[in-house]
Amino acid sequence: MVDLKPILEDVSSGDLSVDTALERVEGFTRVDDFARFDTQREGRNGVPEVVLAEGKRPSEVASIAERALEKEGRVIVTRIGEETEAALEEVASSVDYTEWSERSCIMVLRTAEYEPPQVDGKVTVLTGGTSDIPVAEEAATTAREMGCDVETVFDVGVAGIHRMFAERHRFATADCVVVAAGREGALPTVVAGMADAPVIGLPVSIGYGAGGDGEAALLGMLQSCTVLSTVNIDAGFVAGAQAAQVARD
Amino acid sequence: MVDLKPILEDVSSGDLSVDTALERVEGFTRVDDFARFDTQREGRNGVPEVVLAEGKRPSEVASIAERALEKEGRVIVTRIGEETEAALEEVASSVDYTEWSERSCIMVLRTAEYEPPQVDGKVTVLTGGTSDIPVAEEAATTAREMGCDVETVFDVGVAGIHRMFAERHRFATADCVVVAAGREGALPTVVAGMADAPVIGLPVSIGYGAGGDGEAALLGMLQSCTVLSTVNIDAGFVAGAQAAQVARD
Amino acid sequence: MVDLKPILEDVSSGDLSVDTALERVEGFTRVDDFARFDTQREGRNGVPEVVLAEGKRPSEVASIAERALEKEGRVIVTRIGEETEAALEEVASSVDYTEWSERSCIMVLRTAEYEPPQVDGKVTVLTGGTSDIPVAEEAATTAREMGCDVETVFDVGVAGIHRMFAERHRFATADCVVVAAGREGALPTVVAGMADAPVIGLPVSIGYGAGGDGEAALLGMLQSCTVLSTVNIDAGFVAGAQAAQVARD
Amino acid sequence: MVDLKPILEDVSSGDLSVDTALERVEGFTRVDDFARFDTQREGRNGVPEVVLAEGKRPSEVASIAERALEKEGRVIVTRIGEETEAALEEVASSVDYTEWSERSCIMVLRTAEYEPPQVDGKVTVLTGGTSDIPVAEEAATTAREMGCDVETVFDVGVAGIHRMFAERHRFATADCVVVAAGREGALPTVVAGMADAPVIGLPVSIGYGAGGDGEAALLGMLQSCTVLSTVNIDAGFVAGAQAAQVARD
Amino acid sequence: MVDLKPILEDVSSGDLSVDTALERVEGFTRVDDFARFDTQREGRNGVPEVVLAEGKRPSEVASIAERALEKEGRVIVTRIGEETEAALEEVASSVDYTEWSERSCIMVLRTAEYEPPQVDGKVTVLTGGTSDIPVAEEAATTAREMGCDVETVFDVGVAGIHRMFAERHRFATADCVVVAAGREGALPTVVAGMADAPVIGLPVSIGYGAGGDGEAALLGMLQSCTVLSTVNIDAGFVAGAQAAQVARD
Amino acid sequence: MVDLKPILEDVSSGDLSVDTALERVEGFTRVDDFARFDTQREGRNGVPEVVLAEGKRPSEVASIAERALEKEGRVIVTRIGEETEAALEEVASSVDYTEWSERSCIMVLRTAEYEPPQVDGKVTVLTGGTSDIPVAEEAATTAREMGCDVETVFDVGVAGIHRMFAERHRFATADCVVVAAGREGALPTVVAGMADAPVIGLPVSIGYGAGGDGEAALLGMLQSCTVLSTVNIDAGFVAGAQAAQVARD
Amino acid sequence: MVDLKPILEDVSSGDLSVDTALERVEGFTRVDDFARFDTQREGRNGVPEVVLAEGKRPSEVASIAERALEKEGRVIVTRIGEETEAALEEVASSVDYTEWSERSCIMVLRTAEYEPPQVDGKVTVLTGGTSDIPVAEEAATTAREMGCDVETVFDVGVAGIHRMFAERHRFATADCVVVAAGREGALPTVVAGMADAPVIGLPVSIGYGAGGDGEAALLGMLQSCTVLSTVNIDAGFVAGAQAAQVARD
Amino acid sequence: MVDLKPILEDVSSGDLSVDTALERVEGFTRVDDFARFDTQREGRNGVPEVVLAEGKRPSEVASIAERALEKEGRVIVTRIGEETEAALEEVASSVDYTEWSERSCIMVLRTAEYEPPQVDGKVTVLTGGTSDIPVAEEAATTAREMGCDVETVFDVGVAGIHRMFAERHRFATADCVVVAAGREGALPTVVAGMADAPVIGLPVSIGYGAGGDGEAALLGMLQSCTVLSTVNIDAGFVAGAQAAQVARD
Repeated sequence: MVDLKPILEDVSSGDLSVDTALERVEGFTRVDDFARFDTQREGRNGVPEVVLAEGKRPSEVASIAERALEKEGRVIVTRIGEETEAALEEVASSVDYTEWSERSCIMVLRTAEYEPPQVDGKVTVLTGGTSDIPVAEEAATTAREMGCDVETVFDVGVAGIHRMFAERHRFATADCVVVAAGREGALPTVVAGMADAPVIGLPVSIGYGAGGDGEAALLGMLQSCTVLSTVNIDAGFVAGAQAAQVARD
Repeated sequence: MVDLKPILEDVSSGDLSVDTALERVEGFTRVDDFARFDTQREGRNGVPEVVLAEGKRPSEVASIAERALEKEGRVIVTRIGEETEAALEEVASSVDYTEWSERSCIMVLRTAEYEPPQVDGKVTVLTGGTSDIPVAEEAATTAREMGCDVETVFDVGVAGIHRMFAERHRFATADCVVVAAGREGALPTVVAGMADAPVIGLPVSIGYGAGGDGEAALLGMLQSCTVLSTVNIDAGFVAGAQAAQVARD
Repeated sequence: MVDLKPILEDVSSGDLSVDTALERVEGFTRVDDFARFDTQREGRNGVPEVVLAEGKRPSEVASIAERALEKEGRVIVTRIGEETEAALEEVASSVDYTEWSERSCIMVLRTAEYEPPQVDGKVTVLTGGTSDIPVAEEAATTAREMGCDVETVFDVGVAGIHRMFAERHRFATADCVVVAAGREGALPTVVAGMADAPVIGLPVSIGYGAGGDGEAALLGMLQSCTVLSTVNIDAGFVAGAQAAQVARD
Repeated sequence: MVDLKPILEDVSSGDLSVDTALERVEGFTRVDDFARFDTQREGRNGVPEVVLAEGKRPSEVASIAERALEKEGRVIVTRIGEETEAALEEVASSVDYTEWSERSCIMVLRTAEYEPPQVDGKVTVLTGGTSDIPVAEEAATTAREMGCDVETVFDVGVAGIHRMFAERHRFATADCVVVAAGREGALPTVVAGMADAPVIGLPVSIGYGAGGDGEAALLGMLQSCTVLSTVNIDAGFVAGAQAAQVARD
Repeated sequence: MVDLKPILEDVSSGDLSVDTALERVEGFTRVDDFARFDTQREGRNGVPEVVLAEGKRPSEVASIAERALEKEGRVIVTRIGEETEAALEEVASSVDYTEWSERSCIMVLRTAEYEPPQVDGKVTVLTGGTSDIPVAEEAATTAREMGCDVETVFDVGVAGIHRMFAERHRFATADCVVVAAGREGALPTVVAGMADAPVIGLPVSIGYGAGGDGEAALLGMLQSCTVLSTVNIDAGFVAGAQAAQVARD
Repeated sequence: MVDLKPILEDVSSGDLSVDTALERVEGFTRVDDFARFDTQREGRNGVPEVVLAEGKRPSEVASIAERALEKEGRVIVTRIGEETEAALEEVASSVDYTEWSERSCIMVLRTAEYEPPQVDGKVTVLTGGTSDIPVAEEAATTAREMGCDVETVFDVGVAGIHRMFAERHRFATADCVVVAAGREGALPTVVAGMADAPVIGLPVSIGYGAGGDGEAALLGMLQSCTVLSTVNIDAGFVAGAQAAQVARD
Repeated sequence: MVDLKPILEDVSSGDLSVDTALERVEGFTRVDDFARFDTQREGRNGVPEVVLAEGKRPSEVASIAERALEKEGRVIVTRIGEETEAALEEVASSVDYTEWSERSCIMVLRTAEYEPPQVDGKVTVLTGGTSDIPVAEEAATTAREMGCDVETVFDVGVAGIHRMFAERHRFATADCVVVAAGREGALPTVVAGMADAPVIGLPVSIGYGAGGDGEAALLGMLQSCTVLSTVNIDAGFVAGAQAAQVARD
Repeated sequence: MVDLKPILEDVSSGDLSVDTALERVEGFTRVDDFARFDTQREGRNGVPEVVLAEGKRPSEVASIAERALEKEGRVIVTRIGEETEAALEEVASSVDYTEWSERSCIMVLRTAEYEPPQVDGKVTVLTGGTSDIPVAEEAATTAREMGCDVETVFDVGVAGIHRMFAERHRFATADCVVVAAGREGALPTVVAGMADAPVIGLPVSIGYGAGGDGEAALLGMLQSCTVLSTVNIDAGFVAGAQAAQVARD
């Protein structure tokens, strides 16, 4: 939200009309009658417009993506199903840069003019197992699009803990570490006990029976005896964006 | 339920036969052997016969719709799946007015003779996001069919709270406000802290991981620090009917 | 929240200084460094300042109550424990009007100058059992303090449903009906099937074993086949305030 | 389980060989290597062999059904999916009597020689709504196959409670009443407050959002202020068999 | 609920005044302004007035007990805490017969004139362990007060299943069997596989950790592969009353 | 349960009377009318009679303990509260050997004649934190009383995983390892990834907020990517007895 | 994890280079960039590399299987879906020994050179019902591949408990007993009360309504009054591997 | 965990003995036989030794505190109950600096020699209500002890959202913002939509009924439409330490 005081002062001094003042306070762009997106956030904290496709109709996602490209020069779409992917292919055909990951169902579109941000910050993303990779990649792509240097290390879970020890130099130099894990979700705790940088736990909806679908992993991260914060199950975008915000500081 | 006393008095005075008295007490219409619907409710509180298609067989829904049209001149059917839609198309072919929303899976049928009610009351329906629209539309259609003036405002959730502020004049004049929201479901609380009219929270089954499918939204509305009442997750019809009952008073 | 536009216009025209404009936008009063309460809500929607004592220290509650009396002329405190009651007795000694219900742990304090509001609206509060009375009384007191005419009918639950039928004339004339029920919580559904006015379900934390502590009652109200909205378990204040808002319209 | 003492006495007296004694103690029939069914239960408490098809492979269900027909002359199969139905059609082609309900997914097969039991007992099965009928029919078929006189009354739920009152003579003469209800599941409580006979609650997996899939209904029946016992959600067979056991006494 | 038809006929014929007709329809007795109890239930299904003390104030319980004694000649009070016990001692001092069980917190009061019912029916109550006894006794007392012959067998749980086999003659002759069990709650299933009479499962809030407080026991009874119905955790009164209703038929 | 066949053969051959045969089949000892304990289990699988005091009255515990001492020469009582401890002190005054742990609320009593078993097997018990020690000690005492060599290692949880590595020689030689952990409960997984012997997870009711009271620990052990089995939260006796059974093989 | 001390000593004495020391400490093999598997576990505790196909892409599973065959000479893959089965058929075409169970979705592949282990230990696997067989077979296959002698006994659940008694000689000689059961899951408790060997409960996701999908079974095993440990719902591999570890000792 | 490679190299070169190498790898200090704490963590990531008193005996807490003071010169103890407070007062009597907050149950002890760290970083801690203050203070104290500049703003929750807007300049300059909120927990979402710095949600166990005790707050934060990470309910220490780690970067 914009700071009201300077706007009020400008209105008071006559430097700003009432209508323009209201427009600035609003600070969003309408997409037809079903969406309005925030045009100030990226400037503020570096978090780009990301469209969660799940729960929206393919045509809605495409319209929002088009408007975002127009306004921002880039859009990231996550959790893309088959039909939405088709709808986005059309949007993609008119832009310069498209990155599509079938495994993590994420698409990045950029116009030719768009200049990706670059910040001084390194994020390392670890996974406990092979099945955690799609979610981890959502986090990695997000942090990379926010300008960070990103490194990924997969399948180093605690069941054979020597695998993680062998890779500890890869998170030793990070400014923020994201640790994705399903099942018992113990890897973030062990990493947080060893890392210098802040650790963000990213529970993954892997596992069956009691505590399955990421529940045990989430609860284990919340109960961790070490210092770490967590995000929701499969919330790769949130983990990646938070990590980039931390790393860029 | 009819008031027993006058019926008893009429029976006592001989103005009413025992059989007719029983019929009045019953006050419902049978549909074959599997359904009986209430023929007194709409006169009583303005809530029309609404058929929830989910869990019923298409042929059952069609039969109930036909009988309702015959008795009431209008029927509203919600949560219509593909097969049921086909079955209703046939019923629709013999009536004068059909309104079908593919997005919210709701159909309104009216005979030529039917005169829709009109009450003096305005209901505003807000949504936090784009994905909440189908449920919000179920509420809006219901309130509109009950005779209210209905306005909708979509995608004004709290993550970019300035979007909602810019639209607050649209619920300032409402007699009742319905606020549909999934994910963290915080919008009804913020609106209830600003609105003059009663607010009804309508949680939507949007969101993943812990608290997903509307659970966090429902719990957040129940825990709200402001004054608001709530309905079940995705219960668009209930929210709309309750809002219309409040607005028409 | 105040409407920004007229304030901006007054600032623009020079009729309002920037500082006063900010003050109006803030619209709250500080209590030491630990609380700030809303001084505009009652004027807006009739909901008075109510202090939830649970979770606050007795001295904090007393300070907030004193400041509220000073600013508003009345304060309502709910969920008062033994120690807090003692702390409030002192505050009470300096005001003109005190109403203390040991059963429902609620206290109303008013200064001599305070003139209670009066609105044209009737609220009927029903309970399923004897144990639901304390929560029902919290709702009744709230609606009464908001100026409504309030009637209560206790112990008319569905296990012996003829008890409720015998009292149905008492909610027939209400503008809003609050139905408090624990255990299986079926009374609001039956009442909503019979009442003309909107019904608000108020689940009560009565019951043991599976679904105890009001869980079955809350879920039953959310699942109701009739039209009703609900509030959280034991949320007597919310139910009463919402009912009064509905009734006064 | 057979009474050990007389068998021991017969062994002691030489009237029974050790091997035959063991056989009697076993009291079951093997179906290949994957099933063994109880050949003494029906003689004991009247409950027939019922095969739950869900979770078994179609060929397994058919084999068990064949063996049961051979040994008992009748078999009841519940929760039949499409493939299993096909497999059973073949078994059905070689028996004299087949009863197949598509709505409730239940099949009864009897050989020509089989003489259905007849007991002196009436069971009434009520449902709250139209969607509860399939589960109610599973209960009704079971009780009927156990020899009871069974009556069904559908769609008399509490939202329009006058519908149930109009039919109360139909459960007034029952020896046991089964009440099937989804959503808020309040009907069993109201019926148990009015019936002379024992009432068995049968929650149905109807309803959405919080407390959906029968959860609210089950909890409401467990919390009921009246006297009733309950069975699991959708457990039509258990409710019908228990009712028949109660009614036949 | 009384049958409306004959009352209507009597009103019609002039044999019954409107006021008396209403009174009969009401069929309850008021206790001050906080309770009204059902004066027709015992005549109807044999279930006596039982007052659940939990959640009521001691003075309320005493008042209800007094009124019930006056009207019915007997009252049963369950879940009596220390303070309520003291309040009831006074009521007890003026009646002829008092039975107080400290272990199960239940009190039975009868006036000198009261003649306990006697029905032809036997109920056997089993427990899995020693800790289940208080709840089992609540069931036993209830069935006994309803006129049944009651036998109890304690501590025969499935961990040492030979203990139960040695006592199986004690439920072989019952008309209804109540099986109380905490922890894994498997005893009702094993008994229902062996008994001729209907079995009612009574889960007990014994057990710690996951599934503790009777949750595992309740779920296990609901999931039972045999035929049994169940009541809520610790609902000794409900189990006993239902068993007596079944046994007396 | 005894093997029926040889008993039947002995009865057949006249070597055994019917009454003695029944007694052997029963195989338990009665304690007044409220308890019966298994006199064959220890001979069978080495698990001694252990009395869970929680949920039993002090006098009941004392009576069972006395009878067990008489029959078995030893008794172990767990989860002893203050009053029960007093009751047991009296029983203890008449025996030769008493071991009382205030921290883990466990008491072992032995008569002078009793000879503790000795088996060839080592059990190592680890804990994640200091707060897990009481539960771990219940496991250790049980295994020790069953004749095992028991070693304990405390406070070696995964937050500082080097603490555990420094002690890994202490479980390298065990025949079975019990790992007690609360909070996120990750230690059993890490140990199972390194140990040669079977690992039993023992979740402890330590931790607050979501997943507290041992829930996250239990779920994490059930979801473990390694091979381990688990027992319920705080079930120290079960873990210890199972470990001793495994170790003694 | 390898013992650090001897490696450090060898490095100290010059017998081991730093690089080789690190390699030994790592002790895993990489599969492309998405997996690394433990090459020391089988030598340590006999548990073979088992690939859980669920959650991995078919091509990933095939690659891991190929690498494992190369390194270990055998691989076991569980929870194989249709597409993965096709991918594995190709891998299978180049090895000497393939065992594929459609019912339990498990595949064992061995090269010609591979010599299966043989240990001295017997594991008996029991199931409560027919539907529990697929999970039980996963346990049986795992224990058999670890070199144990395995016996299976199906459909002996507690509803007709005589079925299990007739087969008790089949687990009397086992070194470890696995008991798979869904629904109420009471069989492990009854078996543990009768067996000499340690019992491992294996809950199965069979059952509907409350406590369905194995929840009641799991909770019942955790709450068992006997001594048994448990694994997660449907965790056949874990139960079989733990049983083999116990049996081989 | 120390980096193994240089230690191995030093051992290889003879610069380090095997025993010293092991000691370094261990890196912890023993407290009697029940605790061992990490002596390297603070140097690594700035997180000080914090003792969670809950679940430990007072004497254990005091011993650990003493040893920590000896080794580190400072100790922070959280969740201190009455008895533990008394035990710590004695420890406090021998140190130079004691800070005790009765409201948040936290104590900081420092020796005279101890020099508190100072980092360049600002943390702002907000609360939604007055009841959230104790948990917020735990976070604030932790961040302050880690050397950050800390500002607190209380009672600015979303029900009267203008209160928060009036204070937004206080988090505009922060390097990390901690937002503590109970009830519906919406404040972190609104703040994260407006702040430039990373936001950490801290749910507080305030609230009653469904979603009470912080559950709705936690779920709402996990479901937030904005970018924020969260910690467990009431985990003030974790939030404060994570915030300080982020701020100091």
